[in-house]
Amino acid sequence: MAAPSSTFLCLLLLTISATPPPTQSTPTLFPKPTTYQSSLLKQLAKSNPNPNPKLPYNTHYFPQILDHFTFQPQSSRIFYQKYLINSHYWHKNGPIFVYTGNEGDIEWFAANTGFMLDIAPKFNALLVFIEHRFYGQSMPFGKKSYKSAKTLGYLNSQQALADFAVLIRSLKKNYSSEASPVVVFGGSYGGMLAAWFRLKYPHIAIGALASSAPILQFDDITPWSSFYDAVSKNYKDASLNCYEVIKGSWQELEDLSAQKLGLAELSKTFRTCKNLQSMYSVRNWLWEAFVYTSMVNYPTEANFMMPLPAYPVQAACTEMVMPMTCSDDSMFPPSSFDYKNFAENCRKKYGVMPRPHWITTEYGGSRIEQVLKRSGSNIIFSNGMQDPWSRGSVLKNISATIIALVTKKGAHHVDFRSATKEDPDWLVQQRRQEEEIIQSWIDEYYRDIKHR
Amino acid sequence: MAAPSSTFLCLLLLTISATPPPTQSTPTLFPKPTTYQSSLLKQLAKSNPNPNPKLPYNTHYFPQILDHFTFQPQSSRIFYQKYLINSHYWHKNGPIFVYTGNEGDIEWFAANTGFMLDIAPKFNALLVFIEHRFYGQSMPFGKKSYKSAKTLGYLNSQQALADFAVLIRSLKKNYSSEASPVVVFGGSYGGMLAAWFRLKYPHIAIGALASSAPILQFDDITPWSSFYDAVSKNYKDASLNCYEVIKGSWQELEDLSAQKLGLAELSKTFRTCKNLQSMYSVRNWLWEAFVYTSMVNYPTEANFMMPLPAYPVQAACTEMVMPMTCSDDSMFPPSSFDYKNFAENCRKKYGVMPRPHWITTEYGGSRIEQVLKRSGSNIIFSNGMQDPWSRGSVLKNISATIIALVTKKGAHHVDFRSATKEDPDWLVQQRRQEEEIIQSWIDEYYRDIKHR
Repeated sequence: MAAPSSTFLCLLLLTISATPPPTQSTPTLFPKPTTYQSSLLKQLAKSNPNPNPKLPYNTHYFPQILDHFTFQPQSSRIFYQKYLINSHYWHKNGPIFVYTGNEGDIEWFAANTGFMLDIAPKFNALLVFIEHRFYGQSMPFGKKSYKSAKTLGYLNSQQALADFAVLIRSLKKNYSSEASPVVVFGGSYGGMLAAWFRLKYPHIAIGALASSAPILQFDDITPWSSFYDAVSKNYKDASLNCYEVIKGSWQELEDLSAQKLGLAELSKTFRTCKNLQSMYSVRNWLWEAFVYTSMVNYPTEANFMMPLPAYPVQAACTEMVMPMTCSDDSMFPPSSFDYKNFAENCRKKYGVMPRPHWITTEYGGSRIEQVLKRSGSNIIFSNGMQDPWSRGSVLKNISATIIALVTKKGAHHVDFRSATKEDPDWLVQQRRQEEEIIQSWIDEYYRDIKHR
Repeated sequence: MAAPSSTFLCLLLLTISATPPPTQSTPTLFPKPTTYQSSLLKQLAKSNPNPNPKLPYNTHYFPQILDHFTFQPQSSRIFYQKYLINSHYWHKNGPIFVYTGNEGDIEWFAANTGFMLDIAPKFNALLVFIEHRFYGQSMPFGKKSYKSAKTLGYLNSQQALADFAVLIRSLKKNYSSEASPVVVFGGSYGGMLAAWFRLKYPHIAIGALASSAPILQFDDITPWSSFYDAVSKNYKDASLNCYEVIKGSWQELEDLSAQKLGLAELSKTFRTCKNLQSMYSVRNWLWEAFVYTSMVNYPTEANFMMPLPAYPVQAACTEMVMPMTCSDDSMFPPSSFDYKNFAENCRKKYGVMPRPHWITTEYGGSRIEQVLKRSGSNIIFSNGMQDPWSRGSVLKNISATIIALVTKKGAHHVDFRSATKEDPDWLVQQRRQEEEIIQSWIDEYYRDIKHR
């Protein structure tokens, strides 16, 4: 009989051919930073643009690998990923609550997710906010990070999830708290990440609270017109007249800008900084404002005052293809989604083509009730029906542990805001349910370890 | 109130700023091949080194993307991934059985996984065998694929799983059979892929049969000495004397090769093609043979006669770090695992460092019973205790649907071989149980669709 070889056998050869020394070394999860990297680290700490002393968190930087999914020399390039820690309430081996950062400075999310700080004492939880790669200070290529597809190509959700996995694992080891249960939290895109993280890394997070997470806004899962129909419904419900005026305003804008001195008049009415060259900037500004006011239609005035950040928007268009249209019933000008055009824009701007079905290939979404009923557990999808993004989220319970908490009056991840005395009952109730469910995950976890 | 922007809002702008044409185009999952690619395809079909007319499969090539996890221009490079189809027993919307190819020509796995062909008629199943990237004809860089880490860096299990996901989805669409339930099958590394595929892509595969899949042979999950202890046990159980002779033979080899003309004598005894320069090649050959004969200790003679392939072994050492040692009780020379040495070998040979904890970060493994009890379902881990790889697999039921089927006398994925009249009862029984469980997954799937 021939003596064939196999990958496994030759792998064995690799292990046995080394001369055996007496000790077995346990490799660390991450190498120590080089001298160059240490000085880079110091620069980052110094140049932190948002050192907000009011935020009860300490800032740290984690040496993160650039590319988790190839094994080339450049893949192992390290960049520093920022994360914030609050250990004030924490007991060792207690739960760790991790915010899976979205598209902006992590400090903003920390400042606007007071909910986690509210519940930390009750759970004796460690709070961790992890900045998403390519945002804030977590720039793999420094100032050149957005230069081209060559650098931007590393910005995608799978790399981000792997970042979280590696960082959380390393953190637990460094805190000597590997028995701590981890729960992930996220709002909006961060909520999508939290849900996907629980599904892809159930061995790292025991559950996820995904607030206003439109994980079904892909392919044909959600009707393409539902987003703008939802915005329109908000306005219509508030005032039918308002809805009709807005619906007719687009034509008026067009008519006015066709007139001589029409654009000058528009510039004056809207108090634009420079004179308008076309009606489109006004139209887009209004369009955005209508959507935005729906999203952040929060119940208390204090919340409204909180300034919202300008997010860098350069890199959403390869992976996250969310087709949207405006139906005849909406208050927006009717429009369809032209994929060819969309793709051509990506190609011109970034030199890459979109992958319109990649998200649903990688994460699923079609028949999600059927799929997750049989696999997956411990996810809360919270939504408010004022928020147009809710239509692309999960609005019905999928199983005993994959639960939809929906409020009629809630807006975009309102549950994540700090509790205030003025909060309406439905909001207090939604947060209480979230707390109870999270508690049940943690209790179950500790029971499971006990009975091993 | 300032009008801030957000990624989502600006994504909206991307969708609304295009002038709306009347139709909505549905982009295909994959672009049509270019002229260059079409001619490459013809070359591949012509040069197929294993056109085995006896294998009841048709050969196809799928245009697969090189890098699923970055979005750079070179990521979208297409290579042709081979896959085999048998549609003889298939009814449309019937189940699709997919073999998640391992480290070799896909034809070999098709030829040695007669089990799938045996059960296809009963299920009216479509059979698909997908070749693993960087093996067989599925070479992303043609003859230069193994040239350096620059090309080899794309060879890893996450890319392979994504290949399977994309291909299966496209196949179902092309066969107009998107309602078909998919079950994945794999043996050895292929079994690891099948299990991980069900865990990572539960929306694509409703279940997995993972035969002889050592998914726990990482980190400290499985004792490092268990593999060689298992081989030694096989020999010891067969003959204590045999075990003792082998245990003593390493020293004898060493002593003999130290003598003048010792190596010449060894060369003569082992009938080597060239004269031995050291004892190590003999030692390694024997070592391999002992391991190998344990692995393939199949119950019927006919199976033994099947030649096994020479697998290319170049690329296992970055991702799959499976520390193994030889205890004093084993019949092998005592040895430990030296990570530093191992890592240095990788660096010298490939210019990259291993990531020893990456597999368990990405897929889990620690406390797997606890984790998968609460998430994940529908996986059969089948093992035979003759197979030393079984020790790194799952040997106990984890839940009602994650099941371990273990036989005392089974060897490396013996259940995957074609049934023969001489098969012992324990083997017939194991296969029957697998069939029944797979049937239950499929029945449940059809019930679920019905009750949507």
